Parts: sequence; structure tokens; C-alpha cells
Amino acid sequence: MTQAEQASLKEYLSEQVRVVDRALGRWVPAENVAPESIHKAMRYSLFAGGKRVRPILAIAAAHAVCDAPAGVENAAIALELVHTYSLVHDDLPALDNDDLRRGRPTSHKVFGEAMAVLAGDALLTLAFEVLSRLKDVDGERKIQLVEELARASGTVGGMIGGQVNDLEGERKAPTSLVLEAIHRAKTGALLRASVRMGAIYGGATERELAALSDYGEHVGLAFQIVDDILDVEQSSEALGKTAGKDQAQHKITFPAVYGLERSREMAEEERLQSHAALRSFDDRADRLRQIADYIVRRKA
Amino acid sequence: MTQAEQASLKEYLSEQVRVVDRALGRWVPAENVAPESIHKAMRYSLFAGGKRVRPILAIAAAHAVCDAPAGVENAAIALELVHTYSLVHDDLPALDNDDLRRGRPTSHKVFGEAMAVLAGDALLTLAFEVLSRLKDVDGERKIQLVEELARASGTVGGMIGGQVNDLEGERKAPTSLVLEAIHRAKTGALLRASVRMGAIYGGATERELAALSDYGEHVGLAFQIVDDILDVEQSSEALGKTAGKDQAQHKITFPAVYGLERSREMAEEERLQSHAALRSFDDRADRLRQIADYIVRRKA
Repeated sequence: MTQAEQASLKEYLSEQVRVVDRALGRWVPAENVAPESIHKAMRYSLFAGGKRVRPILAIAAAHAVCDAPAGVENAAIALELVHTYSLVHDDLPALDNDDLRRGRPTSHKVFGEAMAVLAGDALLTLAFEVLSRLKDVDGERKIQLVEELARASGTVGGMIGGQVNDLEGERKAPTSLVLEAIHRAKTGALLRASVRMGAIYGGATERELAALSDYGEHVGLAFQIVDDILDVEQSSEALGKTAGKDQAQHKITFPAVYGLERSREMAEEERLQSHAALRSFDDRADRLRQIADYIVRRKA
Repeated sequence: MTQAEQASLKEYLSEQVRVVDRALGRWVPAENVAPESIHKAMRYSLFAGGKRVRPILAIAAAHAVCDAPAGVENAAIALELVHTYSLVHDDLPALDNDDLRRGRPTSHKVFGEAMAVLAGDALLTLAFEVLSRLKDVDGERKIQLVEELARASGTVGGMIGGQVNDLEGERKAPTSLVLEAIHRAKTGALLRASVRMGAIYGGATERELAALSDYGEHVGLAFQIVDDILDVEQSSEALGKTAGKDQAQHKITFPAVYGLERSREMAEEERLQSHAALRSFDDRADRLRQIADYIVRRKA
């Protein structure tokens, strides 16, 4: 990326964060809507400075296949709702028992465990409500989005399946096969679904959808590898969450299996493959290309 | 109800339980599908001798407006999946901290807290996946079902909102207004949605849907009143869950606010009103009428 491209991407990402945050603000009940406590808890975790990677991937994918995918940000926030619910539940004492997330106390630390469980449930439920109430696409397309999101979040090859593997993986030998299975499901499925849902929203052809799925798969893998690397390299302050936890909890990570150097090479390989997947796309896919670069080169 | 009607209803309910259980068996991944542990946990809570009140209400409502609503049991199980997820999370130590459910140890007692959180999440997610993959209705109708289920399960007037009120109600004075708000959301919304989703699946007219919503509202209220009464009157053994917990936890219940006798009268009033709501329906709504009677007269 040239410096001009980097500046343009930075501006694009900031603008998309604002678009996503405005959509979230519209769809998530305000803090003065009863029962106030849970809406406060939902908003606390949603508006915590997240990078909105998933919704932005969806928006960029929609633009890669459609010049003006009206209202795509509304579909895109369903992904952020699911991602946020998974963080809230993951941080619970019974799971990762994390006190810090994005530089702030985790939901259960602020609102108590009972409320954190319910707030997570509510974020997940709201994701599907949002998709069901989209205005700019027809029922057939909306239900396709519901199916994509539900499968990517579920137990068979989806996010929850990955969390279970992760939980049980803590007691297993860290092999590359176990690692691959955990990652693909735990973060890969939802990142891939982000790209796919944007593409479906934008009316992608089957060919386009297949290529974008391929892109999503590589970007997802790159994202996870870099996440694992950052957990080793960075301070808690830079990450906004407890660093070094993977190792402390004997999580199976890319650096643990392949070492840091090989992990960095692998992330770069995935980046190149994500570009290759987009070879038949014109410059409408440039944002997707740049996002792949950004994901691999980010520092937090 | 005559004795012949009672016998016929009993047979109908047993047959519908079998239909619902078969559908659940098809949709929920088998115990040998990876990750096995969570599918075991999901099935443990799903196949625990539940009465399947919600799916059966949906099936009966579909039949009240349509002679042969093919595949309605598939839509109906989404309600049981949501109901079961809510029980699994409700029983968690951070919430009701219950060790016993339907006569067996609760999910977190058997599988641990982390797995119980994830199994609940997975049941909720699967409910929406099932609706998105229905074969016998078109996308517009499927998305209507998704919206009904999501709203009835959500925070604003839905089940989670009721759970929050319930949680916070433990610290409030038990007034009839607080009680009404808790009940309407906590159990009422999903029972009403059960009737509405069945009606929508069966292609109800707007008039029919309005009448059936009314029926669902009264049946839902009756159900909750009777539940509260049984918690006071029955032994843990008869209920299959810890009896007397409401009082011990200072829950706001109908007997606590109105006394037992008046609560019984209220349940009977709701039963009569549910019948009145069905006045324009022919004998295709007889099962709904009988289910209302059954709900009020049950002993567990």
C-alpha cells in the first residue's frame, strides 16, 4: 500500500465505524427504555471502541458486487451484535474469566454475572431481530442472511463449536490440526460470514459469492494468526485486554504451534491468498484488498 | 370437558409430543457429531420430559386456520429450543442457581457452567437456523416467524426483559403492576408467540391472527398463574423441580400478591377469556380450547 492509500483507508475505516455506530445506535434500545439496566449493559459492551471489523467487511463486500447497496449497514450490525455477545459470554468467570476488555472492566465486572449472561443473550437475539426487520431487501434475501448468521454462529463448524473446541483444547496437545479446527470455527466462521452476508445483501452472483467466501476464509485465518501473535508481543495496554492470557491458559495458538516467525510468514501467505481470491474483481473490491492488508499489519 | 374429551386430549398431547420430539431429533445434531460434548448437553436439556406446551400450541394454532399445515412441527420446535435455552441459563448459579429441573440435575451440574452457557447460546442460535431452513413455506413467511420469535424473546416486552424484571423484582415490593409486567414478558410473550407463529405458519388472515393473539395472551397469563400456584402447593417431586423456590427467593408471584384463592379464580377467568377469544372459530380450534382447559387444570 502507498502512503496515500493508507491515508485513504484510514479515513474510510473511520467513516465506516461512524456509519456502523449510528446504525447500532438506532437498533439497540436506548438506555432509558425499560428494562433500562439491560440496555445499559448491552450498550456498554457495544460502544467500547470496537474496530467493527466484521460489519466493515460486510459493507465492503456488498460494495464489491453492487454500486449502492442501500441499508447494508443495518444488516452488517447483526455481525457486531453476535461478535459482542460472544465476547460478553466468553469473558464470564465460568469461561475465560477476564476482567478487562478493550481497556475497560468486562460486562460481568460492571453489571454482575446474571446481567452479563442476559445481556449476551439479548445481543444474540437482537441480531436476528435486526435481520428480520431490514427494509431494503426482500424476504428471501433476509432469510438467507439469517441462515448464514445462524450457521456461522452455531455448533457445527460455527463460532460456538469453536469455543467448545477451544475450551476442551486447553487440555489437549497443541497440534496444527487441533489449532486449525479451533480457529476455523471460532473466529473464521463469523469473519467469512461477514463477507458472505455483505455479498448476499449486495446480490452477488454464485461465482462472486464463491470468490468472496474464499477471500473471507483467508482473511479470517490471517486475522486469527495476527491476533495470536499480538497476544504474545503486545502489552495489555496496547491491546486493551489482558495480554499473554493465551499462554497462561494453555490455549492452542499459532505461535505456540509454529513459533512467532513462521506464524508471521503464515499471516502474510494468507494475505496474499486473500488478494488472489479477488483476482476477477475490479477496483470495487479495492477496499477488501486494503482491509486484508490492514488486518495483517495492525498493531492491536 | 367430558371424560371422552379428556381421553382424546390426552392421546392428542402424547401424539404431538412424539411429533415434536421426532422433529427435535432431526434438527439437533446427534451426540456423535463434533463437538460431541455440546450436542450431548443440548440434548440432555431438550429431552428431559418437557411437556412441549409451546410447540403444541403452535401446531394447534396452525390447525385452527389451515387443514393441513405441512411441516409446522419444524417451525414449532424453534419455540422449544428458545424455551429450553432460557431454562438452562436461568438455572445457572449466577441467576436462579437451581440444581434440579424436570427431576434431574440441571445442565451446569452435569456439564459444568461453561458448557451450560454455551449450550444455551447454541439452542438459541439453532432456533433461528431452523426457521431459516424450513422447506414448506416461502421466505416472506419464514422471516415473519423469525421476527415473531426474536421480538418475543427479546428485551422490550419479551422474555429476556421479563427475566431482567424478575431478577430486579426480587428487590421490589410485590405489587400487581410489577407482577403483571414480569409475567407478560417472562412467560407470556413466548406463549403468545407460540400461538401467533403457528397461525402465521398456517396462513392466518389478519382477523384470525388478532383473535389467536388474544387467545395466546389469556392462555399465557393462565399458565403463569397456575405455575405460581403449583410452586406453592406441590412437592418438588411432583413438579420435578425445586418447589417453594419462589417464596424462598422473594419472587413476585400471583399467590404472593393475591393469595391462593383469588389466584385460582383469576386462572379460571383467563381460561374463560381464552375461550371467548376463539368464539368466531369452528371446531378446528377445539384443541386450542382443550389445551387452555388442560393448562389451568394441570397438577404439575
